[in-house]
Amino acid sequence: MAAVLDFHLSIPRDGRPSYLRIADGLRQAIQSGRLEPSERLPSCRRLAVMLGVHRHTVTAAADELVAEGWLKGGERRAHRVAAVLPSEFFNARVGHTASRGAKTLRWRLVREAGAPKGAASAARGHRYTFAGGVPDLRLFPYDEFRTCLAQALRRAPRGLGGYGDPAGHPEFIQRLSLYLRRVRVLTGRRILVTHGSQEGMFLVAQLLLRPGDKVAVEELGFPPAWDAFRAAGAELAPVRLDASGMVPEALEVALSKGSVRLIYLTSHHQYPTTVTLPIERRQRIYELASRSAVPIIEDDYDHEFHFRSHPIAPLASNDPSELVIYASTLSKIMFPSMRLGFLAVPEAIYHPLVNLRAIITRQNNTFLQDAVARWIDSGGFERHLRRMRRVYQERRDALVDALSVGRRAGLALDWSVPDGGMALWLDCGVNSDAVTREAAARKVLVNPESHYRFAGTRPGTHLRLGYASQTPPELRAGADILLEAIASVRAARATRP
Amino acid sequence: MAAVLDFHLSIPRDGRPSYLRIADGLRQAIQSGRLEPSERLPSCRRLAVMLGVHRHTVTAAADELVAEGWLKGGERRAHRVAAVLPSEFFNARVGHTASRGAKTLRWRLVREAGAPKGAASAARGHRYTFAGGVPDLRLFPYDEFRTCLAQALRRAPRGLGGYGDPAGHPEFIQRLSLYLRRVRVLTGRRILVTHGSQEGMFLVAQLLLRPGDKVAVEELGFPPAWDAFRAAGAELAPVRLDASGMVPEALEVALSKGSVRLIYLTSHHQYPTTVTLPIERRQRIYELASRSAVPIIEDDYDHEFHFRSHPIAPLASNDPSELVIYASTLSKIMFPSMRLGFLAVPEAIYHPLVNLRAIITRQNNTFLQDAVARWIDSGGFERHLRRMRRVYQERRDALVDALSVGRRAGLALDWSVPDGGMALWLDCGVNSDAVTREAAARKVLVNPESHYRFAGTRPGTHLRLGYASQTPPELRAGADILLEAIASVRAARATRP
Repeated sequence: MAAVLDFHLSIPRDGRPSYLRIADGLRQAIQSGRLEPSERLPSCRRLAVMLGVHRHTVTAAADELVAEGWLKGGERRAHRVAAVLPSEFFNARVGHTASRGAKTLRWRLVREAGAPKGAASAARGHRYTFAGGVPDLRLFPYDEFRTCLAQALRRAPRGLGGYGDPAGHPEFIQRLSLYLRRVRVLTGRRILVTHGSQEGMFLVAQLLLRPGDKVAVEELGFPPAWDAFRAAGAELAPVRLDASGMVPEALEVALSKGSVRLIYLTSHHQYPTTVTLPIERRQRIYELASRSAVPIIEDDYDHEFHFRSHPIAPLASNDPSELVIYASTLSKIMFPSMRLGFLAVPEAIYHPLVNLRAIITRQNNTFLQDAVARWIDSGGFERHLRRMRRVYQERRDALVDALSVGRRAGLALDWSVPDGGMALWLDCGVNSDAVTREAAARKVLVNPESHYRFAGTRPGTHLRLGYASQTPPELRAGADILLEAIASVRAARATRP
Repeated sequence: MAAVLDFHLSIPRDGRPSYLRIADGLRQAIQSGRLEPSERLPSCRRLAVMLGVHRHTVTAAADELVAEGWLKGGERRAHRVAAVLPSEFFNARVGHTASRGAKTLRWRLVREAGAPKGAASAARGHRYTFAGGVPDLRLFPYDEFRTCLAQALRRAPRGLGGYGDPAGHPEFIQRLSLYLRRVRVLTGRRILVTHGSQEGMFLVAQLLLRPGDKVAVEELGFPPAWDAFRAAGAELAPVRLDASGMVPEALEVALSKGSVRLIYLTSHHQYPTTVTLPIERRQRIYELASRSAVPIIEDDYDHEFHFRSHPIAPLASNDPSELVIYASTLSKIMFPSMRLGFLAVPEAIYHPLVNLRAIITRQNNTFLQDAVARWIDSGGFERHLRRMRRVYQERRDALVDALSVGRRAGLALDWSVPDGGMALWLDCGVNSDAVTREAAARKVLVNPESHYRFAGTRPGTHLRLGYASQTPPELRAGADILLEAIASVRAARATRP
């Protein structure tokens, strides 16, 4: 039996259509309790008479409230107020936990990853930083690039804003390929654009590694790459380094044990020791990989910053067995937060990698790629590289000069002048973890050997000193403080009983 | 015994330091064969006399060539030409395959992924497109956003260009949180910025799923999400849909079988059928998930484009058991190639997700996030949303009108007018795979039901018609052709014996 109610509807008077205003009035009547949960409403016809509007207007208001969950019914049945109101169910401030069990979910996590180490070194509040891997952000030609960005954005309405090729923006890939062919001697490879080289390494790990597989890595290396391999369930097999980089005989032993499915190599500037892998070793390592049918991932993160006139070409430039995956990035050439990296891979794994990347991040931002393509076309890209190569060489020399002061003052410092890159590997003669702490207390950031060592916590005597992000005067001032810190650790050790 | 050779060095005369010019001359002598592999060089002292330069200049030239791999020796030993020349080893045009085994690597791939389905529908050469999921790229306020980008880029030299927080740019997260609280009723959640919602779903799958686990999914759904779950080794358990969305009783059956570890839900606008999940079902599904301790990933990909005045809030807005992972994106609000998505998650899984994301892509582009934060601050973000909501509602109505013409002309068409979103789910009464082919022949792009059906190839009678990217005249013209295609398939069926 229809309960015909007498109740007050307060209909707001504003410019909106009347059905929306009537819906507001009804919603408010329900929220205020004037209409109760499950209560039956007058018919739309009757409400229309009450409100002096057409019946269709009331029906439209009721439809609105049904869709929002305040009313039930309609279509020849009378409307009722919902038994559970949206406000009750979805307003988190209403106490409802009792009715639904206050217990929060106990999550089962199938993978664990530590906090990234790099994050700590990005901490603020330092005066000088030798943290490596970051170019001098002050020297990038932002105005030039802003113009390229604006031009690229103008193409967004005509398709560039939509979904694109998961492998990357074709016009960017074309420019990049030409550049890589000319400068890095890379030919016959397929390019896949990634979010930094990190996504490239993660992708390769996902495609090639399963739990229990091993990855041969340099015993001092790049922990985020290791994390990518571990995330695929792989174990790491550390291979010995010496002053020339990875020792082929040590790799041979690792390979002979089987289950190594991938070799990770920083051939151009070994990370973190900066050494360039000599040609004979490259040849030997390539032969070992080819004979064992184990692919190599060659991480070439700062190729252009090399101060010799003819840098050795990457392993990927001569890869008859098609086993080298080349990973690189524009993070050092441009700046890290761009997130533009790439893989240059043999044809056989190109499509599987592209399909997998589509599942992970779909694609890179297209107009950023287009902007870089324009920047390459304009000549700005190579102009910037030439400038930075000169700047970084001056900075390397400034750092070497500053350290020489310490050596002359009697500190047992040792280093090889790096042929290129953005960092110097310093043997400071004392526990470099202690030096790092002493330097931090003086507001100078450095990274100790232990950050890069596979075996974990063993302290070493080396520091990785990034010289790219500071000017020569900054490098000298920072190095002076660092030398104090080293001297202080040495003095503390000397006075210890 | 030292072989003292008489050979011609051709030293280029240009502005470079003499050691580099001498290195060039020696390199050229080696490359041309005037100096042979392993051949011993005159001493630096002797070469200096021959060339009339200081001995140190020759030493520097020789050091250069040792570093490049052309020479061996030095440091008190005589220099020899390297046994294997860089040109021989690294010039891919030289025939060397015989010596290193011509066999190319046979790759072992541990994961396989098909080509993404969406890619096909992005194909060019159409006159009209009803492919869903893409906003109208012509209507985005690029000029406004370009200004924000330029402002953000100005901050790059002061840190924004470097490595940042893997969880996202704090200033963007703050603006986004405020917006989500106000518009989507989301509170008490941690935000993690991702490359589209795709990376969010991939991350969640990596963190929560292991091989053999099951994910309950709507039987018609979003294949890229399914791919992300499968990439973690999970199997899919399809749950029945009806005209109101996921059927809770069917979910209950799926959960009762155990091994379901995640529920994937498109509650706001079911993908692809566009239905809004009613409140009672939300409550029931939430209770089932809570009781079974199974988390829900709620994919809310186009929340703002809803034409009712008070859309139902997401499940994540009232989550006492803290089991809802909310995934969303700016791809529909801005444009897809931005690659800005986010997760809004319970505290318990925030840090594990951030640590994992650092391994996959490190972080999103920071200045893009900063630009969007500025765009939100300027009011442009919400102004654009308000405008697009109105535009899309008009377009929905235009499409409905155009389809009504076909219904009046006697085609067995059926649909529910969607409350929001960017697409309409049309029952065209005949095999929609055939209609898709007929439409494609007429240069009109549509996506058939089979694209979204878990069970794979079974043809259905539905089409998903995206109406967001075309103007009303375009929609009418496209719909006319589509109706022709439907009529043509119906006629072919009628005349078949």
